[in-house]
Amino acid sequence: MAADNPAGRGVSESLWRMFWPSTIAVVGASTNLATYGGQTVDMLVSQGFTGRIVPVNPKHESIAGLPTAPSVLAIGDAIDLALIMVPAPAVLDVVRECADAGVACVAIFSAGFAEQDAVGAVRQEEVLAVARAAGMRVLGPNCQGFFNVHGSVAATFSPAADPRRGAERPTPGNVAVVSQSGALGFALFHAGVALGLGFSHVVSCGNSADVDVLDVIELLVDDEHTDVVLVVLEGLHDGPRFRELAARAARRGTRLVVSKLGRSAAGSRAAASHTAHLAGSSAAYDAVFQRHGVLSATDLEELVDVGMALARCAAAAGPRVGIVSTSGGAGVWLADSCDDLGLEVPALAGTANPLDLTGRVISNANVAATVRGFVEDPALDAVVLSTSLSDPLVLAREAGEFTALVSSTAKPILVLTYTRPSPASVSLLAELGLPWATSPARVARMIHHLVAAGRVMPEVRERSLIAGPPALSFAGGGEKVLDEPTTKRLLRAWGVAVPEGGYATSAGGAARLAASLGGRVVVKVVAADVVHKSEIGGVALDVESSGVERVFGDLARRAEAAAGIAMDGVLVERMANAGHEIIVGGLYDETFGPLVMVGSGGIYAEVLRDTCFLPLPLDHAEATRAVERLRCAPVLAGARGRPAADVPALADLLVRVGAIVERGDVSELDLNPVVVHDAGKGITVLDAWLALRGPRVG
Amino acid sequence: MAADNPAGRGVSESLWRMFWPSTIAVVGASTNLATYGGQTVDMLVSQGFTGRIVPVNPKHESIAGLPTAPSVLAIGDAIDLALIMVPAPAVLDVVRECADAGVACVAIFSAGFAEQDAVGAVRQEEVLAVARAAGMRVLGPNCQGFFNVHGSVAATFSPAADPRRGAERPTPGNVAVVSQSGALGFALFHAGVALGLGFSHVVSCGNSADVDVLDVIELLVDDEHTDVVLVVLEGLHDGPRFRELAARAARRGTRLVVSKLGRSAAGSRAAASHTAHLAGSSAAYDAVFQRHGVLSATDLEELVDVGMALARCAAAAGPRVGIVSTSGGAGVWLADSCDDLGLEVPALAGTANPLDLTGRVISNANVAATVRGFVEDPALDAVVLSTSLSDPLVLAREAGEFTALVSSTAKPILVLTYTRPSPASVSLLAELGLPWATSPARVARMIHHLVAAGRVMPEVRERSLIAGPPALSFAGGGEKVLDEPTTKRLLRAWGVAVPEGGYATSAGGAARLAASLGGRVVVKVVAADVVHKSEIGGVALDVESSGVERVFGDLARRAEAAAGIAMDGVLVERMANAGHEIIVGGLYDETFGPLVMVGSGGIYAEVLRDTCFLPLPLDHAEATRAVERLRCAPVLAGARGRPAADVPALADLLVRVGAIVERGDVSELDLNPVVVHDAGKGITVLDAWLALRGPRVG
Repeated sequence: MAADNPAGRGVSESLWRMFWPSTIAVVGASTNLATYGGQTVDMLVSQGFTGRIVPVNPKHESIAGLPTAPSVLAIGDAIDLALIMVPAPAVLDVVRECADAGVACVAIFSAGFAEQDAVGAVRQEEVLAVARAAGMRVLGPNCQGFFNVHGSVAATFSPAADPRRGAERPTPGNVAVVSQSGALGFALFHAGVALGLGFSHVVSCGNSADVDVLDVIELLVDDEHTDVVLVVLEGLHDGPRFRELAARAARRGTRLVVSKLGRSAAGSRAAASHTAHLAGSSAAYDAVFQRHGVLSATDLEELVDVGMALARCAAAAGPRVGIVSTSGGAGVWLADSCDDLGLEVPALAGTANPLDLTGRVISNANVAATVRGFVEDPALDAVVLSTSLSDPLVLAREAGEFTALVSSTAKPILVLTYTRPSPASVSLLAELGLPWATSPARVARMIHHLVAAGRVMPEVRERSLIAGPPALSFAGGGEKVLDEPTTKRLLRAWGVAVPEGGYATSAGGAARLAASLGGRVVVKVVAADVVHKSEIGGVALDVESSGVERVFGDLARRAEAAAGIAMDGVLVERMANAGHEIIVGGLYDETFGPLVMVGSGGIYAEVLRDTCFLPLPLDHAEATRAVERLRCAPVLAGARGRPAADVPALADLLVRVGAIVERGDVSELDLNPVVVHDAGKGITVLDAWLALRGPRVG
Repeated sequence: MAADNPAGRGVSESLWRMFWPSTIAVVGASTNLATYGGQTVDMLVSQGFTGRIVPVNPKHESIAGLPTAPSVLAIGDAIDLALIMVPAPAVLDVVRECADAGVACVAIFSAGFAEQDAVGAVRQEEVLAVARAAGMRVLGPNCQGFFNVHGSVAATFSPAADPRRGAERPTPGNVAVVSQSGALGFALFHAGVALGLGFSHVVSCGNSADVDVLDVIELLVDDEHTDVVLVVLEGLHDGPRFRELAARAARRGTRLVVSKLGRSAAGSRAAASHTAHLAGSSAAYDAVFQRHGVLSATDLEELVDVGMALARCAAAAGPRVGIVSTSGGAGVWLADSCDDLGLEVPALAGTANPLDLTGRVISNANVAATVRGFVEDPALDAVVLSTSLSDPLVLAREAGEFTALVSSTAKPILVLTYTRPSPASVSLLAELGLPWATSPARVARMIHHLVAAGRVMPEVRERSLIAGPPALSFAGGGEKVLDEPTTKRLLRAWGVAVPEGGYATSAGGAARLAASLGGRVVVKVVAADVVHKSEIGGVALDVESSGVERVFGDLARRAEAAAGIAMDGVLVERMANAGHEIIVGGLYDETFGPLVMVGSGGIYAEVLRDTCFLPLPLDHAEATRAVERLRCAPVLAGARGRPAADVPALADLLVRVGAIVERGDVSELDLNPVVVHDAGKGITVLDAWLALRGPRVG
């Protein structure tokens, strides 16, 4: 049923007409319920679409009791949406006809386009060209359509939304799903409906020839029915637009929860071939999610669970969980699961936590009053009632009290039902607005996400504070990777601390440099294409001035012997003071552009897998928070009685690296190791190289 | 229905009669279906018990159509099992009557015993005394009874097993559940039945006054119907017996899967009050599970999922997973989830992996043949079909082919159904013997456990190879914690490398010691009650002989200033060579006895949380495997071009520590740090202390 497109929304009128159509043509409609054409007409009707449905089929007078039209042009009425499910080679003609008939939007279910082969890709381009010329929006091809639940528009053939094929009937609600994959989008919907979760929209974008996930997110962020948007994401073409939408969602209070697929090598390999999207760097996605308060779920069930938690609860103000359980064992188990996720189950004054109600339930104790006591305890941020709802008894006999309790507090109250709840319990939980799950780990994870949702996103300043050289001036000459002396000169110009020293091309020059520096020095090979100097024995540490000439010769011989290359010269530097080894980097991500990285260095770097990526802009406060999120943060803070490291200086370095990758034509900047000295003593970049961005393809 | 107790089994005749009774008396039987007494009689009848049921109730002539008896004594027939659900204060008289009537076993459902208060604890002891005197076995009190599914003995009131209260009807199968908590035991059963999993037994032990989880495990390990035992464990009184049973299960091929509750501080606090069991050290349990091939599940759903995987599949020979998916997105998601758990999704010759079948399914491709191709690929250890079974179509139309495929291979084949399967699909999956789950993470976790189940448990030699001093001779004199010089003398006697040096009580003596050692030395405070010397500045490193007298005075003043204690003397030792810092320990666990610990040392120790515990006996091979399981193992193996550390010497140290804690009266031995030198150069224990075991209470 059509609804007005509220003024001032960012979504175009035509896209609005796709999801709130008055008239729908079904091209490829069939009397056979085993075909997409038959199923689609049937679902539109059976899910209660109240507008006009015109099955387009020249061979039948009526389908499902609806009069057919022999062609789109023959309909002779304004058509908001044409659903197209004819074979791929016939789609172009249908789209041309839709254009001629002034159709506003088409959704193409047919496969056989860019997802299939080069012929399909050409076919897709042709369809898109016709649609663009006519100002017609296109969903798909190769999609499973959509379901606007509030509008009763089941424009899909998905069995997971079809009560005739075993799916449960959906309730309108405030959770939306958008996915490139129709199977996954409707799978989430199917799972949620079974849990009693109410939905607003499910949209599958398929090949996203025109309307893509971002267009749909834009629509949903502004949608009056939608509070939570669950996104299954295989890749993005426009990272910056995603960031804008995420920021807009945060401002409006619409929650985005994303499952990013293709995080693993195998997954990424398959995702690339499946939707022809770049899977992109998982770390870059995580960095952007973190910055904008987008929640991230790794599993399908987790995504649905988070959806339910956010749909029914406010965010949690902190990680302190109270547990009231009608089974002692279940309370213990949930406490363990909370601990696994870093939540706290604090000891409370005057009552046990977890509280074991065994026995008291049997004697008709007032469970709601006990839960209320926990909810009102200022030492708790969220409360879980753990009980068995295979029989709704416990909840049903105090439904009034629970209703009053839920409406009296913004504190999250969740239910762990260690038995699968009966249908009556599922309905009751929905009525009460209580999110629930059947296992301790799932409930703990829901709380974990509610805590994440409650974290205040700090504003990051838009402008970099660092003034560097007006432009990177070394971009000419076909050079790609800058050597260490050049990179360090550049770093120094940007105000980054590198060891005092210089470049020499002769043994005598190196010795003179060492003498002028005074004290003991480091001597390092400089040669084209040698990035990993230490692997070829190209670094001599702790050399006295008098030994520098000899070392120069040794290094030249080693470079020749190990890599068969002529040494250009050496870098002679004063030995740096000791400190914590950290890795810092800057890089250009295909999806999101420049990023800054910080991570643990030293011999435990690989073992710790401890890195944090940061999108730009980056200010000192955000850089500090990133360092504090590192696993090695306690070490930097001065673990085991050792002095604290100079975290402010490290944060300052990150901001400077941000400024370098933001302004320059840099594809990668690698500072490894960076030594972070004791508090107040600054940092020193011991080794560094920089790679320039070549011209990008595509 | 009674079955013969096979000869040669370890389970006593009386316990056998509990679970396979011919005659059951229900004491507290009621006509009111809202009471335990009414529910229990009803469930025995409705679940098809074929023996004799005698409701004991003096007020009614018949209950549920069965003639009652006014008392147990009045039954006048051999009674295998009496189920008791009268109020706690009346239980003792009932048990006395059962004893007089020659009842073989009782199961006491009533609460109000040791779980409640001291009065209840006394009551429990009295009941137990009567039962013991009569040779009568007792399940409970405060339990929910049991369900022998093959025998149709539903001796429980649990709603989670009652079809009249919404539970599904169970199918007999090869999975058993045992739990102290009846709510959790029957919750697992309830969850499993809904997934189509077949069960043999569910047993809840409640307070475990007599029959405890271990007795039931013993019964189930030997049970002809049971292949997999799922155990919810809150604590054990007899760790060694658990180890014996685990070893026996491994020999018989019965799989044990345990969820240990009380792993967290809050959980452990609650578990202790809930069942009055020591929660024990989680690390000790993990060590024992690891040694005996017991699988460990942290979540309730995980426990059921592993049960299904092991019930339907052989173990996996390795971690390489092939994925055939009717949705490209679902295949990608599963590949990511596999990667998260350390499984591999290798690229294959001639086909994509994950393989996206979208489109091919619609065109009636032979899905089973594609899966067969994957199963027959020697590059894979397990194969997953990822599809939507809300409609059983995909599986049903090739049911014959899948049956043939499953019966032709021992390689695990699993199903990810990204929609909730229809009841017909659930049945079909059970018939085909295919384990399944509705989310990528759950399927990946099932495979993860199948891989763990496939790991061959190496035999660990029963005898320690290390001959130490005949006995620890320092146990007298009320001493509890041995100081560093004493501990190091002891270590040296056991063949452990400590720095060369000695103990001095005067500045002059210390200087003479230093001179005799030659070179630079370490000087350390020795004083009663000072364990953490470095925190009071009680360690002077890298001291020249000439400076030792002065350092002696400094240290004495520092000890006085910091801790207000008089220094007894100093330890003077030669400076040790550099190497990797490792922590090694030995301790006496309340449940499992002596354990050896090894973990990462140095400033990253707390960040890494990298420890491994080992039960005894401990041989060199097992110690080496433990070191290789550490997260820092790649560093010890020589990461980033650095020399490998002397892992054999570290393993040798672990074996020696094992011998010390095995033979001596040691409660804790702490070697921190241990420096592991480069390969072939051995180890050095830099610091050490040892605590003696006092007499144990209880």
